[in-house]
Amino acid sequence: MIKVGIIGGAGYTAGELLRILVGHPETDIAFVHSTSNAGNPIHSVHKDLVGDIEGDFTDQLQFDVDVIFICSGHGHSRSFVESNDIPSHVKIIDLSNDYRLKDHADGFVYGLPELNLEAIKTANKIANPGCFATAIQLAILPLAAKGWLTEDVHVNAITGSTGAGQNPSATSHFSWRNNNISIYKAFSHQHLGEINQSIQQLQDGYAGDVKFIPVRGNFTKGIFASVYTHCTVDEKEVVAAYKEFYKDAKYVHVLDYAPDMKQVVNTNKCLIHVEKHGDTVLVTSCIDNLIKGASGQAVQNMNLMFGLDQKVGLQLKSLGF
Amino acid sequence: MIKVGIIGGAGYTAGELLRILVGHPETDIAFVHSTSNAGNPIHSVHKDLVGDIEGDFTDQLQFDVDVIFICSGHGHSRSFVESNDIPSHVKIIDLSNDYRLKDHADGFVYGLPELNLEAIKTANKIANPGCFATAIQLAILPLAAKGWLTEDVHVNAITGSTGAGQNPSATSHFSWRNNNISIYKAFSHQHLGEINQSIQQLQDGYAGDVKFIPVRGNFTKGIFASVYTHCTVDEKEVVAAYKEFYKDAKYVHVLDYAPDMKQVVNTNKCLIHVEKHGDTVLVTSCIDNLIKGASGQAVQNMNLMFGLDQKVGLQLKSLGF
Amino acid sequence: MIKVGIIGGAGYTAGELLRILVGHPETDIAFVHSTSNAGNPIHSVHKDLVGDIEGDFTDQLQFDVDVIFICSGHGHSRSFVESNDIPSHVKIIDLSNDYRLKDHADGFVYGLPELNLEAIKTANKIANPGCFATAIQLAILPLAAKGWLTEDVHVNAITGSTGAGQNPSATSHFSWRNNNISIYKAFSHQHLGEINQSIQQLQDGYAGDVKFIPVRGNFTKGIFASVYTHCTVDEKEVVAAYKEFYKDAKYVHVLDYAPDMKQVVNTNKCLIHVEKHGDTVLVTSCIDNLIKGASGQAVQNMNLMFGLDQKVGLQLKSLGF
Amino acid sequence: MIKVGIIGGAGYTAGELLRILVGHPETDIAFVHSTSNAGNPIHSVHKDLVGDIEGDFTDQLQFDVDVIFICSGHGHSRSFVESNDIPSHVKIIDLSNDYRLKDHADGFVYGLPELNLEAIKTANKIANPGCFATAIQLAILPLAAKGWLTEDVHVNAITGSTGAGQNPSATSHFSWRNNNISIYKAFSHQHLGEINQSIQQLQDGYAGDVKFIPVRGNFTKGIFASVYTHCTVDEKEVVAAYKEFYKDAKYVHVLDYAPDMKQVVNTNKCLIHVEKHGDTVLVTSCIDNLIKGASGQAVQNMNLMFGLDQKVGLQLKSLGF
Repeated sequence: MIKVGIIGGAGYTAGELLRILVGHPETDIAFVHSTSNAGNPIHSVHKDLVGDIEGDFTDQLQFDVDVIFICSGHGHSRSFVESNDIPSHVKIIDLSNDYRLKDHADGFVYGLPELNLEAIKTANKIANPGCFATAIQLAILPLAAKGWLTEDVHVNAITGSTGAGQNPSATSHFSWRNNNISIYKAFSHQHLGEINQSIQQLQDGYAGDVKFIPVRGNFTKGIFASVYTHCTVDEKEVVAAYKEFYKDAKYVHVLDYAPDMKQVVNTNKCLIHVEKHGDTVLVTSCIDNLIKGASGQAVQNMNLMFGLDQKVGLQLKSLGF
Repeated sequence: MIKVGIIGGAGYTAGELLRILVGHPETDIAFVHSTSNAGNPIHSVHKDLVGDIEGDFTDQLQFDVDVIFICSGHGHSRSFVESNDIPSHVKIIDLSNDYRLKDHADGFVYGLPELNLEAIKTANKIANPGCFATAIQLAILPLAAKGWLTEDVHVNAITGSTGAGQNPSATSHFSWRNNNISIYKAFSHQHLGEINQSIQQLQDGYAGDVKFIPVRGNFTKGIFASVYTHCTVDEKEVVAAYKEFYKDAKYVHVLDYAPDMKQVVNTNKCLIHVEKHGDTVLVTSCIDNLIKGASGQAVQNMNLMFGLDQKVGLQLKSLGF
Repeated sequence: MIKVGIIGGAGYTAGELLRILVGHPETDIAFVHSTSNAGNPIHSVHKDLVGDIEGDFTDQLQFDVDVIFICSGHGHSRSFVESNDIPSHVKIIDLSNDYRLKDHADGFVYGLPELNLEAIKTANKIANPGCFATAIQLAILPLAAKGWLTEDVHVNAITGSTGAGQNPSATSHFSWRNNNISIYKAFSHQHLGEINQSIQQLQDGYAGDVKFIPVRGNFTKGIFASVYTHCTVDEKEVVAAYKEFYKDAKYVHVLDYAPDMKQVVNTNKCLIHVEKHGDTVLVTSCIDNLIKGASGQAVQNMNLMFGLDQKVGLQLKSLGF
Repeated sequence: MIKVGIIGGAGYTAGELLRILVGHPETDIAFVHSTSNAGNPIHSVHKDLVGDIEGDFTDQLQFDVDVIFICSGHGHSRSFVESNDIPSHVKIIDLSNDYRLKDHADGFVYGLPELNLEAIKTANKIANPGCFATAIQLAILPLAAKGWLTEDVHVNAITGSTGAGQNPSATSHFSWRNNNISIYKAFSHQHLGEINQSIQQLQDGYAGDVKFIPVRGNFTKGIFASVYTHCTVDEKEVVAAYKEFYKDAKYVHVLDYAPDMKQVVNTNKCLIHVEKHGDTVLVTSCIDNLIKGASGQAVQNMNLMFGLDQKVGLQLKSLGF
C-alpha cells in the first residue's frame, strides 16, 4: 500500500483528492494536514465524506509516507518545500503552479501524462497541471506534435465556480453568480505559461499566440473549451492525428461529435472533438476541473510514479445529470 | 413629487427599492445614504442601474424629504431612529423587523396593506413586513378572518438566496448552494412573531401553533409557501372567503390552479391557491421576496400613505422565465 | 461473476444502473434491452459512459443470466413479467411500482434493506422502493419500530428533475424549471401506499395520516425531506432509537446536525438528523433520488441476494459540489 | 393610442412583447392571434400575466390596427404576409429572420436603431434583428464605422435557453441543460448573414470573416458576447469612437469595466466594454436575448415609427439578481 500524506487538507482540491483516495485500493491515507482545522474530523469540513473516512486533521507533519500531495494553493507550495526537510524517498505531487515552468521547476516534472508519460513514471516530484491548462493543452497538443500550428490559436473556456476555491468573494456569491456570465484575465491568464511551454516542447519555434478568454460559468464543476486555429490539413488527416496522439491515453477520448460538458463531470476523462470548417480547425474539449483538472490527474500521476495502472482508483461513477 | 431619502443604501433591499423608484412617476430620490460607500456612484454598487440613475451615495443626512426608507438591517433601524432627530413631518418606512411587534412598535403601523389598509393610509411610520411573513400571512389570514383556524397550521416555505443579503457566508457560497437544499431555524424563525400577531388580530384567542420550516432554495429570488391546516368548511366556501378577503387587494390574486413561483418573480404580486383534501385545506402562496416581500411592499405602503393609487410605479414587467 | 440483464435500458434509472455496474467487480453485463434503441451503442444514449462501456442495445431477450433489472417504468414491469417466460433461476429486481404493495406483490419482496434485510437475502424477486418512499420511510420507520407514532406525520420533500424521467414535458422544460418551485400531487402521491404499508409492518394499527407534499426542485439530482410529528419521548432517547435502528445499516448515517442535500449526491447514502422542538420531533433525510432512491438501492439488493457485502460496487465518489 | 395586433401570440417573444406592452402608456392591445390557443385566456399561456391582462387568444384576424407584430417564427412570417391582404396603413414589425437580408427584404427596414435610426422612423415595415446579431453587431459596428476592421473578428457568445423557444427538445430538457455547456452551429449560425450585411453597410469591402461560436448556457435569459480582432488604434481613441458612435443611443452604454450578464437581464440595455491588449481590441457586450434581442427592440422600433421617444414603455425594472 502507498502511504499518503496530504498538505493543505481543508481546501477544495484536497477534498476532491480524499473523495478519490477513499476508494483507491492501493493507498492508505496516513495524515491530512491542516493548520486551520487541526483536531477537527475530516468529515466536518468535507461533509459528504461522512461514513467514508474517519480521523481528524492534524497540524503535525510526518514524513514516514511514500508520497505527499501539496494542496496548499499557489505560492505556498514552494515555501512549504523549502522550509521542510522532506526525505528524498518521499515523492511529492504539487497541485499548485509553483513548479510548473521549467525555469523554476527545481526537478519537478510537469505532470501531464499525455505529454510526459515516461518522465512521470520515473519522477520523484510532479508539478500537476492547471485545470484550464489541461483542457486547453489536450485540445492543442496533437496539432503541435505534428508541427501544424502556424497562426494564433483562439481559445474560449468556461469554468465552474469550484475553480476559484472556497474563499468567499464577490464573484462566488450565489446571488451574483447564479444565472450570470462574466469574463476575467482576458489574454493574460496564468495558465498560458504552461500551455505555451508544452506547445514549444512539441513544436519548437511556434511563433503564434494562444489568445485565451476565461469565462466564469454559473455551475460548480467542469470546464468546456472551444479552440480553433488556421489549418490547411484535411479533416480526416487531422482527426487521425488526434486519435494517433491519444491512442495510449487512458482518459482522453476523441469523439465523432461535439461533447457537452456534463459528459465528464465527476470523471477523470477529457473528451475531444475535432472538425474542420474551411481552413479552420475547431477542437472542443471538456474536463471536470477538479478531477482531470486537479486531483484526479494527481492520482493518475501517482499511479504512474508507483508503477500502477493509470486507471487504478480512477474509474469514478460519472454524475450523468 | 414625493421627496425620498434612503438609509442603508448599499444593501439588497435598498437596491431593489431604487430599481422600483427610478421608474416611479411621483417620487424624487433626494439622497441615498451609505457610510461604507459614501462618494461612490450609486450604480457602482447596484450595477444594473447604470444608465438609470446618476448621483453618489452620501454619508450626510438631510431631513428635508417627505419620506425615508430605512434599509439598514435588523437592529439598526431603532438605533438610527433614536439617535437622529427626524422631523415629525417626515414619514418613515422601516424595512427591518425592529418595529413590527406591537409591544415595541412605538407608533409604527404594521404595513401589510391587505390587513391594515386604513391604518396605513393615515400612518406616519410603517413597519414593513418580513418576506416569509408576507407570503405566509397572505395564505393564512383569510382563514383567521373567518375564525376558521382550529388546529396547528403547517408551513413549509422555500426562499431565494437574496433573502440572506449580500454578506458572504458559507450558505451563500455558490459552490455550496448551487443545486443544494437545506433547512434552518425550524419552528423558530423570527417572522413567527409577526405572523402570530396578525392571526390574533383577526382571530383573537386562536390557540394553535404555526409550525414553520424555512428552506434555503438554490435560486436568487422568490418565496414559495405551502400551508395547510384542519378545516371542515366546504372547498367552495373557503375559496369564496379568500376571494372576498382579497376583493380589493391590488396585488393578491386567488387562482384556480396552484401557481409556480416564477409567475411572480420581479413583480409585486402574491398568487394564492386554495384546495381541500378531505378535512385539510391546502393553500399555496408565492411572492418575490425582495418586492412584495420587501421593497415593493414598501412602495405600496408609501403610495397609500401619500394618497396615491397603490399600483403607481409598481406595474413591473415580470421576468417570465 | 453475476450475469446481468437490463430491461428498459435507455431510461434514466437504467443509465444510472449502468454507471454503477461498469465499476462493480462482481458483475458482467450480459445484455441491455431497448426496443427504441436496438442496434445503437449504449454510450450513444448514456453519453457519459463513452470509454466505460462497449456494446449496443438489443431488442433480443435472453434469459441465460443470473439477474434481470427491469427499468421499464410503472405499469410496464408486470406486463413484461407476465408475457415472458422467465426461468425460475433468474432473479428479478423491478424498479417500478408494480409489485411494491403486498396485495399485488406476487412473491416480490419489498426491497428496502433497512426494513427487510433477511427477506431480501433469500428473495428471488425484489420490488425496489420508490425514491420519495425511500427518503421518507428512512425518516419515519425508527419511530414506527418503537410504536411511537401517535398522530399525523407531516412531510415536505423536494426532488430533482431526474425523478420525472427523460420524457420532455412542460415541467421538465429548462426555461420553465430553472429557478422555479412548484408542488404536485399534494397528499396523494403514489408512494404513500408503500410508505403506509411499511409503517403498518412495524407499528400495526397506527391510525394517523402521512400528509405528504411533493415539491419540484430546480436541480437534477437529490431528494431532501423534512418530516415531523408529535412525540413526547426525550430527544436523547429518540436519537438513540434511530442509532439503534440503523446500527447495522451500511448506507444510513444518523448525524448530529441537519444535513444539506448535496452531501449525498452521487452516493448510495441516506443522511438522517433528528431533533426535538417541544413535543414535536423533526427528522431531516436526504438521498440521491437515482441512487439510494433507485439504481443504487437495486444494486444493494442484488448484493444481498447473491451473498455479497452490501457495499460491493457502491462506494461511489460523491460529487462534493 | 397605438392599436396593436400580435400574430403568433403564444410563443416566447410574443409573451415578452405582451409583458412590455401591458405597461406601455401609448398602446392598446387589439388582439393576440394564436391558432393553437384560440379561445383560451392569454394568461393561461403567459401565466405570469395573470392580473395584468384580460382577454383571450383569437384565431380571427382583423386589420383595423396601427401595427402588427409577427412573432410566428422563422419561415412563417413571409407566408403570413403573402397570404393575407394587410392594408398598407398597417405597419408591420416582424421578429423572424424572414426579411432581414436586403436581397429578400421586400421593403422591410432592418430594425437596429443604433444603425438605421432615420430609416426606421419612416419605415412601414421592420425586420427586427436577431438576438445574437444584436449583441454582436453592437460590439463590432463602431469599428466598422471607422473603417478599422482589417482582419477576422472572433466571437464567442453564450445564450440562455429561451433563445430556443418553447418547443421541448433534447437540449432544452432541464435534466440535460442544468449545469451543462455545449456549442452548436459553429461558424455557421444563421445570424452571420445580417451581421455581415451591417458591417458592409458601414465598412464596404471589409474582407475578413466573423468567426462566431454560439454557446448554449445553463440559464434562461441573456446573451454575453466576447468579441476581438486586430486593431492598432490606441485604446483611448477606440473607446472614444465607441462613445461617439453611441452618443445618441438610448439603450447602449459604454462602460469603463467589463459587464457581467445579469446587469442587463429584464432590461432593453446593451452594455459594452472596450479594452486593448497589445494590438488586439476586446469588446464585451451583453443583452437580454428576449428584450433588446427581440421584443424590447421591437417596441423600440415601434416607438420610433410612431414618433414616440424611444424609451416610452421600455424603462423596465431590471432583475438585479
